[in-house]
Amino acid sequence: MQACIISIGNELLIGQTVNTNAAWMGQKLGEVGVTVQKVVTIPDQEEAIRAALDDALAHADITLMTGGLGPTHDDITKKVVTDYFGGKLVFHPDILERLRRAFQKRGFEMPAVNENQAWLPDNAEILPNRVGSAQGMLFVKNGKKCVVMPGVPREMKYIMENSILPMLKRELTGQVIRHHTWRTAGIPESMLFEMLGDVAKLERFGKLAFLPKYCGVDVRITISAPDPDEAEKRLQQAEKIVFEKIGHYIYATGDTPLEQVLGELLTGRKQTLAVAESCTGGMICDRITDIPGSSNYFMGGVIAYSNDEKIARLRVSPETLKQFGAVSEQTAREMAAGVRETTGTDFGLSTTGIAGPTGATPEKPVGLVYVGLATKESVVAKKFVFGEDRLINKERATYAALQMLYKALKGIQ
Amino acid sequence: MQACIISIGNELLIGQTVNTNAAWMGQKLGEVGVTVQKVVTIPDQEEAIRAALDDALAHADITLMTGGLGPTHDDITKKVVTDYFGGKLVFHPDILERLRRAFQKRGFEMPAVNENQAWLPDNAEILPNRVGSAQGMLFVKNGKKCVVMPGVPREMKYIMENSILPMLKRELTGQVIRHHTWRTAGIPESMLFEMLGDVAKLERFGKLAFLPKYCGVDVRITISAPDPDEAEKRLQQAEKIVFEKIGHYIYATGDTPLEQVLGELLTGRKQTLAVAESCTGGMICDRITDIPGSSNYFMGGVIAYSNDEKIARLRVSPETLKQFGAVSEQTAREMAAGVRETTGTDFGLSTTGIAGPTGATPEKPVGLVYVGLATKESVVAKKFVFGEDRLINKERATYAALQMLYKALKGIQ
Repeated sequence: MQACIISIGNELLIGQTVNTNAAWMGQKLGEVGVTVQKVVTIPDQEEAIRAALDDALAHADITLMTGGLGPTHDDITKKVVTDYFGGKLVFHPDILERLRRAFQKRGFEMPAVNENQAWLPDNAEILPNRVGSAQGMLFVKNGKKCVVMPGVPREMKYIMENSILPMLKRELTGQVIRHHTWRTAGIPESMLFEMLGDVAKLERFGKLAFLPKYCGVDVRITISAPDPDEAEKRLQQAEKIVFEKIGHYIYATGDTPLEQVLGELLTGRKQTLAVAESCTGGMICDRITDIPGSSNYFMGGVIAYSNDEKIARLRVSPETLKQFGAVSEQTAREMAAGVRETTGTDFGLSTTGIAGPTGATPEKPVGLVYVGLATKESVVAKKFVFGEDRLINKERATYAALQMLYKALKGIQ
Repeated sequence: MQACIISIGNELLIGQTVNTNAAWMGQKLGEVGVTVQKVVTIPDQEEAIRAALDDALAHADITLMTGGLGPTHDDITKKVVTDYFGGKLVFHPDILERLRRAFQKRGFEMPAVNENQAWLPDNAEILPNRVGSAQGMLFVKNGKKCVVMPGVPREMKYIMENSILPMLKRELTGQVIRHHTWRTAGIPESMLFEMLGDVAKLERFGKLAFLPKYCGVDVRITISAPDPDEAEKRLQQAEKIVFEKIGHYIYATGDTPLEQVLGELLTGRKQTLAVAESCTGGMICDRITDIPGSSNYFMGGVIAYSNDEKIARLRVSPETLKQFGAVSEQTAREMAAGVRETTGTDFGLSTTGIAGPTGATPEKPVGLVYVGLATKESVVAKKFVFGEDRLINKERATYAALQMLYKALKGIQ
């Protein structure tokens, strides 16, 4: 089954909003065996919507459309699509009543403009949206489906998960598409490619792709097989070769983030972590606490942006700061040891560096970062030189620190 | 001038990568007066690339294509597009030499597979890429332009900023497109719409759109005018009405994030801030330190995930924790006061809550969050009930805290 996604909204075209909806839908559709062949982003204009529908219905079995269902005057999707499929809007008093109650629950009187959200097409199945005021719609014409959903991510996801994905799962039989990703760190894309050797040998099992990111290079295989068992068999054969060749650099399989792998390792060993951040400014703690249950192993962190805070909360010696500076191997070591001791954890992780754009000196350029790691037995620090961009430096330093902890937990040099 | 963006890559269609490139390009093109009429995402397949080029060249004056220029076997864009425009690839020894040196600088021997990146079309202008190994290309046919760039964001941005945007600025005259956004907080989309009154009156100046986000609703106007002066005049007329009607809810104009507005306010008053986070887990500190120069007003933060840390670093009373619990108005107040006093800052900001999915009790559901704010004069705390999603709860609590600080700085009730 082939799908086309149509994202509607000027905010996407002018770059005010990033199209995360299309990515999420592509992933979920792939999981049930639907291939997205195209994503098209168009403005809130009748002509553009009609042209995109013509193209999508000609090539895809199912079209998923998001955006332009809000209550205000620039939201035209519902009217245009209803008309395109030859229907008209009719009033639903029950939906109006539900909207009124939802507003009251939030402590507001429902504005009159929301009334138009109770007008719905007479030629579509209504797909309930319990987390917002715009309902989903399913139009069917000549065996082709067209789903229309709000652009608010939470509302689109609700309708996908409660109506569309269950429907597709029921209907689909035949070819299974399986995506699998190995996540690597510490090695460039082209060297991974060379280490894998004869790619044709691996591509007997599925199509390979290399995806470089700030936290490392992901290697993905896409397997097409007649049934799930065969897909699993091919995946295992491919994975055996991949682990022989590049296993040393793989920190996770699937889409698991490194912070989750760390959480599982720490939980399994009943060990705990505390973090002292300077240049990463809280990003390490933020990523760690994205993981549910992180309170079991993450005791806390100190964001020591000033020298006073480094001394008071982390016991960094004023002499060290004076002699070597805040951005130094010595300070990174004392921060890691200090946060471990004052919090009473098994591991202490630290960063200190110059995120930029200001703060550089002739000896210490923007992008210079030291990462420290303290255990009961030892305290080590490592130097990195990243680039000019503040946000990218924060992210690269964050993943450099998480990788250092990972290697320590796995005993990798 | 009308543009079409073609994003190439299976990783975008299956949702492994979010298409942030298209958003960035849309924004930059808009700034020089180019309207993106369509964004199309397609797989790394010759047929799909050719069909997308046919469509784009028929409708747009300039086509911007990204992705599929890497050194590995699944990167086919360069070959397909060169062939589409009737050229062939020729070898550039100077580029090979530069690639070799770049690898050596990073401490690697250049892998043989990178050699194919020195083969470039004989029918395109080469657009230098100094931050990566794949060069950009500019094809021109019947007055229509087609730019081909790597998909790595940093490399695409380098080529856009150094080659494409300067070229477009030189060529463009005529109609100016101006986007302007007012950022609001604390009020739903439909109420904003009603408060604005007669939208037609505002739309004499430009087209209005409402964009709901977790941190509030953005209201955007798009003005089309014969010259920059006229666009500015219309914007000022529209802005006057907007501020009369909804000015109370506007925390910034333009695309400025709230954390930057806070930084400017604190810098202007020479005041300082410290943060104590529990349920937000570091996200507040992370967002604050995204702003260059934040070390001037942000002294540091404490991520107190455990009760022990709340007591030891923030002086929260064990009695308070016992009697009211860690997630309570009292604890939020003591955390805010404690971090302010121990750090010696003007403001102390705190969060404590249940981000989920675990940790709820019958009295305290997932999504319950208290935000505290301490100044020299007073300590206040406010209760919020958000939803079920951990990451969204972290983000909403982060912006609830930042908004509370903003209101205090501006003297808004």
